[in-house]
Formats: sequence, structure tokens, C-alpha cells
Amino acid sequence: MNKQTLNIGLFGFGCVGYGLYQVLNKTNGVQARIKKVCIKNPQKVRPVSDVDFTITASELIDDPEITIIVELTDDADAAFEIVKAALKQGKGVVTANKKMVSEHFAELLDLQKQYQLPVLYEAAACASIPIIRNLEEYYDNDTLSRIEGIVNGSTNFILSKALNEGLDFGETLSIAQSLGYAESNPSLDVDGFDAAYKLQILCAHAFGLLISASDITRIGIRSIGQEEFRYAREKGFKIKLVAQAFKTSEQSIAAFVIPKFVSAQSPLFGVDDVYNGVITETAFADRQFFSGKGAGAYPTASAVLSDISALSYNYRYEYKKIHNANATELDTDFRLQVYVRVPLELGKIAHSVFDSIDVLQQDKKGICITGLASLQRLQELSGNFQEAAIVLCDGEKTSVTTAEIQTFELSEL
Amino acid sequence: MNKQTLNIGLFGFGCVGYGLYQVLNKTNGVQARIKKVCIKNPQKVRPVSDVDFTITASELIDDPEITIIVELTDDADAAFEIVKAALKQGKGVVTANKKMVSEHFAELLDLQKQYQLPVLYEAAACASIPIIRNLEEYYDNDTLSRIEGIVNGSTNFILSKALNEGLDFGETLSIAQSLGYAESNPSLDVDGFDAAYKLQILCAHAFGLLISASDITRIGIRSIGQEEFRYAREKGFKIKLVAQAFKTSEQSIAAFVIPKFVSAQSPLFGVDDVYNGVITETAFADRQFFSGKGAGAYPTASAVLSDISALSYNYRYEYKKIHNANATELDTDFRLQVYVRVPLELGKIAHSVFDSIDVLQQDKKGICITGLASLQRLQELSGNFQEAAIVLCDGEKTSVTTAEIQTFELSEL
Repeated sequence: MNKQTLNIGLFGFGCVGYGLYQVLNKTNGVQARIKKVCIKNPQKVRPVSDVDFTITASELIDDPEITIIVELTDDADAAFEIVKAALKQGKGVVTANKKMVSEHFAELLDLQKQYQLPVLYEAAACASIPIIRNLEEYYDNDTLSRIEGIVNGSTNFILSKALNEGLDFGETLSIAQSLGYAESNPSLDVDGFDAAYKLQILCAHAFGLLISASDITRIGIRSIGQEEFRYAREKGFKIKLVAQAFKTSEQSIAAFVIPKFVSAQSPLFGVDDVYNGVITETAFADRQFFSGKGAGAYPTASAVLSDISALSYNYRYEYKKIHNANATELDTDFRLQVYVRVPLELGKIAHSVFDSIDVLQQDKKGICITGLASLQRLQELSGNFQEAAIVLCDGEKTSVTTAEIQTFELSEL
Repeated sequence: MNKQTLNIGLFGFGCVGYGLYQVLNKTNGVQARIKKVCIKNPQKVRPVSDVDFTITASELIDDPEITIIVELTDDADAAFEIVKAALKQGKGVVTANKKMVSEHFAELLDLQKQYQLPVLYEAAACASIPIIRNLEEYYDNDTLSRIEGIVNGSTNFILSKALNEGLDFGETLSIAQSLGYAESNPSLDVDGFDAAYKLQILCAHAFGLLISASDITRIGIRSIGQEEFRYAREKGFKIKLVAQAFKTSEQSIAAFVIPKFVSAQSPLFGVDDVYNGVITETAFADRQFFSGKGAGAYPTASAVLSDISALSYNYRYEYKKIHNANATELDTDFRLQVYVRVPLELGKIAHSVFDSIDVLQQDKKGICITGLASLQRLQELSGNFQEAAIVLCDGEKTSVTTAEIQTFELSEL
């Protein structure tokens, strides 16, 4: 494996782009330099003086000295055009753009095959955690049965702050944005889109399952309120936006992004602030756990740099599990133990979502039901009624005791 | 990367060897079969009927159809001879023998270079955790500043059981042995040799530091008694045998295996029983954490299988950090905050080990001192006085309050 000196053409010089510039300046492990940076806004003041900026993409794409394109913009459509053009010109690509990788996953597979060039995107899922590489390489033979993780740093930051400091949603979101943890469009984070993009990517590398992010059951954190935090504090739980995918049969996978009450028994309990954490379960190695920073300029840039280094010795994803095509379909009928709180007037609707009910509580503000419901019914409830707070229970049952159950007659509504 | 169908020649059919046989039978990810198994004792009844056993090593080594030798014996010297012979015959090698890899590390480097063939040993450190692969591949550019981990499953099992169930050392050791978690020679586990072998291997892949396991400060768990467990329970700590290595300057590394009081703030706190866990700290990605089962037939066999799979696409360790030779020396003068308990008659000697003392307590049974002491002085104390219980404090200071300090005059002894 010959290590080449790499001339990098960089698209985007925001938080992560500038982070990469700094990280490259401080490491001597990778023989690489940023030859030119393509930006959108030439008027913006940049914190560097020794970087060659341009607004013309072709100056990077057509430069034969540039052998690798690093794509760190936040525009998924423009990013895909950049990647296509780069591959066409014989350049390997590193990107951190999960939206782009998610939305164009099948096309990226085809393009890599067509041009026999790699597109690496470790930074697109869980930033600093080398999860894609491990799913590709280390778990290529042991049969994975489950992945479960906190894959979105900004919602984890928001939920951690809200639980610990009693702050409300808006305040914590502003703090997350000011620290550079949140996407420029906060809906991507708080409505679970970002986590779904990542789960889609992880499903491909973990199970060989090719799906679209929109196929994934996705419930965000907007409706989680002080009632849920109080409940979590009382029970010793934390609330995390958890992405999960597991086999429900040899051929089918349940995949969903839903907030969850996490108990102290889970390794995810200790994953706070902008940290991400991923649990893998395999047939032979049992349960494994990876954690690390999931957001921020340096952790993301560090993952990008690791991909740049991997390109230098011609590494590429082999997508073995996709070629073996083990898992082929999504199971949206899977039933989960879940907590749902709705305003009084939605009581009947919420009640109808459940296959079975363990606990039903009513007070002046609303109704709270714990029981079994299918992914599909939960998705419908969440999609139709933004005010429904939906949180998965940890384990099979919550620790709600029968003493807490209040009599409730639906006919009274 | 062409994937070949591999004929495996297997040495050893104990716990892990049989585990590998089972794992290979159950996975379809790796195109490999065990062609022949070399064992020491042909009289022993084996739980399989479809395996070709021999007691003649050359039947494996000289078989041109066998392209890979998997070495799973527990004899380090014999294992090294097997590896040498295999490489000489043009066969790649996978081994789980940490003692052999540790004791012959430099020779294994030379042999791999000489024959241009890989020797892979992921299972030799932390069994199911892909730590070597990640140190080699993912952390090849980001500057690692520290690794800290629970790398020995059997001492962790013993310490977890002793703390939670109040069992004594002998009882928990017997249970660990009956479950196949402990080495056949228990001293390898409880005196920290096994952890030191692994730390030596991790130091090479993490920092490019070539040392011998005997250079590593090593203090086992034999002297830890009910006083330490009581102390840990009172403070909310656990006791773990922790292997650590970190930069004390650009050129030097402190590396040691010493029991530690671990607080709930550490990711290692939740790593119980036979689980292993490793924290990495890097300049850019900050802190990362990996955990998984560190002992047992399947987790170890799973790591072996992952190496077999890697051999099938010609993967080899590149030892980049050794070639860059960043870290070159061990720092044994480094000072740590430590708890030492000795019988009364060793009070003066224990006292003299410390550079500074924070807390000194005396009762009828002995003397307990907390303060700063160097690795070298701690190693001397431990080597000369088996009865000295030595446990590192978590963080800079323990939470011992001044109210607990009792006046103590050394001249009174």
C-alpha cells in the first residue's frame, strides 16, 4: 500500500471545514494539504490567510493535481453534484454530508462501481466514532442482530441540558446553535431527520438493508415537555433520542428513531451532551458499545481526516452485506412498549393506537398511557398530532406500579 | 481485493478453538473451513466428530492447501515456533496468544517484514473489542494522548463479584475458572501479567512504543481485601484492574497496570464481569470509549474470525506509528495519586514511598495512606511486600475529607 501525498480540493469552509484546516495543520500523520477551497460567499471574512479560495467549482474538479475532493457543504443537492463531478474526473471523495449520502445512497453505490473510486463518509454518522468502518470491517462475518444508538449530538445536548438544568426547549436549542452543534435548519435535528439519515446509512453497513430515510419510523423531541422530564427524574431515567434497528426475522428489520426513557443499566445512560454512543449486538461477540463526540468541528474533522488517510492507501467500502443481501425488508408492524401523553381531547385517539394498555393516568392537563403499540400506529399518531409526546420505555415494562394507576373511563371524555 | 476460500490449519482445540469451530459453522460471511487441527493430547475426548485431528504439526504447516494457520494454544514458546514455521511456508497467521505476541513482538515485526506475510492478533487484546484494528486504522493520524482500559476479563469478573457479593478471592477465582474465563495459570490474570502483555501490544499500536511487558509497572489484585471493598462501597467507587498509558511528554509514555478506584463518572464504572472497556483520548476527537466482552469462547473466537476474514482480503497491520517512532521511552518516574494499605509493621516503609501525603489513617489492623507516589516506588513496594494493597485514586484526589484524617506519628511505631 503506497502512501501518496494528497492534494485536497475542499468544498465548504464552515465550522467543520475550518476544523479540518486546523487539524491538518497540527497532525503529521497524513501527507496531505488543502490546495484550494471552493466557497459560496467570497465576501465573508475568513479566519485564515494562507488558503486559496475560489467560488468556481471547476477550479477544483478540473485540477489534475487535486486527487481528492472533500465535501463539507450543508447543501445536499449541490454536494451530490460535486461528488458526481469529482468521481467523473477520477478523484476519490470524502464527505460528511449525511443528508446527501442518505438521499443518494443507491446512486453513490452505482457511481463508486462505475468509476471504481471510493466515496468515504465516516463523519456522516456519529462523527468521531468509527462506526461505519467497524460495521464494514470488523462485523463483516459475525451476524449483527441489533444496533441501537444516540446518533444526533444536538438533540442529546438539548435533552441533557433540559433534564439537568430544567431549561426549556428554545433556550437549549439556542445554546446548541451558538456552540455549532445544531444543524442550520433545527428541524433536521429535533424532528429526527438527521438521526434517520444516519440510521439509514448504518442499516446499509450493518445489515445490508437498502432503504430510504423516509421509510424509517421517526418521532422527534418537540413534544417532550416538563411532564416527561419529571417522570424521568422520578424513575431515575434519562430521555434520549435513540435510533434503533434490529432483526425481527431472518429477512426483516425494524428501524426507528424515537425518544426513549433510558435506565442506568444501559450504556447509553452515560452518553450525555454532544456525545454519541452506539450499542451493537452480535450472535457471537454479544453486546459491544462505542462512544465519542458526535458533533463539533474537531471531532467531525477528525473523522474526515481518518477517511482522507484511508483514501491514501486506497481503502474503499466493500458493501459486502448489501451484496449478500441478507435483510431485505422493513418491519413496520413491530410492537413496542411505549409511553404516550396527549391532551384530554385526544384521549380516545391515543387509546386507539395501543394493542394493549398497562397503565392509564389522567389529570387536568392530559392523559398518559403506557402499553404496546406498533411502529406504524405510533408514526401515524405523531404525524397527525404534534402535541402527542411519545417516549419508548426501557426494557419490556416501565417501573410504573399498579398503585399509580388511576381509573379511567374513555366514555367519560 | 479478491476474497479467497481459505483452508485453515488450526493449532489447539480448547475453549476458543472449539468456539471458533462453532462460530465458523454458524456464519456464512467468511469462506473458510478448518481442514485439520493439531492437538497435544489425542486421547482427550473431543465434542466433535467431523474434525480431522493430528498431533503432527508438519501435517498442517507443510500442507500446500492450507493457506492460513490459526494458533490458539496456551503455550507461548510452542506458539512462536508454529508462527515462524507457518510464515516460512508462506502462510498468513492469526493468533489469540497475547503472551506469545508480547514476548516476541519485535521478532514478529521482523518476520512479517521478511516474509511479507501478515500476523493478525486482534483477539490477543480485549477479545471482542476491535481495539487494535481501530488504533491501527482509525487513529493513525489523530494524535492519541492516552489509552486507559479494563483489559483482563477474569480479574474484572473476580473484582465485580467480590464487590457485589462479598465473596472472597479464592471463591470468585474458582467460579471464573469453572466458566472458562481465567487463564490456566491464575497468576497471569491476578498478578497483572496478562494485562501487561495486552498493554504492551496496545502501546505499540497506539503510540508506536516498543517495550517489553516487564518494563510496565504492574501491580496485581491479590492484596486487595475487604477493607478496600468496604472503602469503595462507602465512596460509591468500584475497584478495577486498569491498564493505562499516556504521554508525559512528546517523547515519553507512562504505562502501568494497577488496581484503581473507579468513580461513576468514568465510562469504566459500568464495565463489569467479563466485559472489557477501553477509553482513548485524542487531540481532536476528544474522549472515545469502546466496550465488549473480554473473555469467553465466542467473543474471542469472533475476534479470531474477524482476523481470518481480514486475511482473506490481504489485510495486514502497517505499524505506521512504530515507523514514525513518535514515542521512544517509558517514564517510570511519573507520580500518581494512590491509596496504600499495609500492616502496622510496614508503616514506615509505606510512608517512605510517598512524595506527599494527603491522608494517613491508622487502626489496629494497619495503616492506610493516600498521597502522591511515583510508579517506580510503587512497583518496588509491591514487589517487596505482597501484603501491601495498592489502589490508584480516581482523578486527582480521592474524596476523603479532612475530618477522616487521624493524627499519626511515625515515631510511635
